[in-house]
Amino acid sequence: MFQADSRYMKAAMVEAQKAYMIGEVPIGAVVVHDGIIIGRGHNLREHLNDGIAHAEILAIEEACRYLNSWRLIDCDLYVTIEPCLMCSGAIINSRIDNVCFGSRDPKAGAVRSLYTVLEDSRLNHRVNVVEGVLADQSAKIMKDFFKAARKKRKNKTGNS
Amino acid sequence: MFQADSRYMKAAMVEAQKAYMIGEVPIGAVVVHDGIIIGRGHNLREHLNDGIAHAEILAIEEACRYLNSWRLIDCDLYVTIEPCLMCSGAIINSRIDNVCFGSRDPKAGAVRSLYTVLEDSRLNHRVNVVEGVLADQSAKIMKDFFKAARKKRKNKTGNS
Repeated sequence: MFQADSRYMKAAMVEAQKAYMIGEVPIGAVVVHDGIIIGRGHNLREHLNDGIAHAEILAIEEACRYLNSWRLIDCDLYVTIEPCLMCSGAIINSRIDNVCFGSRDPKAGAVRSLYTVLEDSRLNHRVNVVEGVLADQSAKIMKDFFKAARKKRKNKTGNS
Repeated sequence: MFQADSRYMKAAMVEAQKAYMIGEVPIGAVVVHDGIIIGRGHNLREHLNDGIAHAEILAIEEACRYLNSWRLIDCDLYVTIEPCLMCSGAIINSRIDNVCFGSRDPKAGAVRSLYTVLEDSRLNHRVNVVEGVLADQSAKIMKDFFKAARKKRKNKTGNS
């Protein structure tokens, strides 16, 4: 039975903070193997001009390089916000065993909100899911980000 | 109304053939913008040791670099086999307008087979879908690939 470890979610939060500081939607992720973080990622969509560059994808790709394998056997992924369809699909394709996410994403979440694809018995891989670890912090940094973004937009409109 | 153009699907087939020749599951994709192919990709999962490296993802990333934008506005994606969850999510996240695929994937297809995520009205972007262009060719190269792979495995077992 998978036991989520909040230390790894804290590391994912550090990644989310890195995204926040550079003006990216603040989501962070880490991949853990044998007690070690082998992949880290934070959302870099704007900086890389790449819609694929979500936190989970970057963390998974780093982990693949570390293990020199596309199969992330015995790996867990921690991410601050519920993964979208793309990232949930990437988790399945990479054969990750366990996923722990912080806060739900009611608009695009594919693990619990809009879909439950990680637990779909028709697919060739299923993933254990734990949710709610550091949920308040994960949601708060997102709220702060979008609040600041709205304020910035408002100021710009006011000044033009 | 989107009119699929079989010339672009032929280009996607050329990509699938490149994958076939290097022993990768033969799926190919192209992204088209304003009548020009701006992104090409073929499955490179084994060569890159990266579960993210599907044909569609690589074609989308090339197109993002070409347009210097994560928003692939006015772009169409042609792919030989029905996209999986990950690639369907990437298509949505990249705001691609139209997708044309060749043959269905009953085990993992997320556009028509297991899910219909590209047409999900709850998501913030919807995609027009055309299927069946060069379907027989797209399916045949996959069948040939898996037949050859089974034969190779059988010979190996026989020799050991």
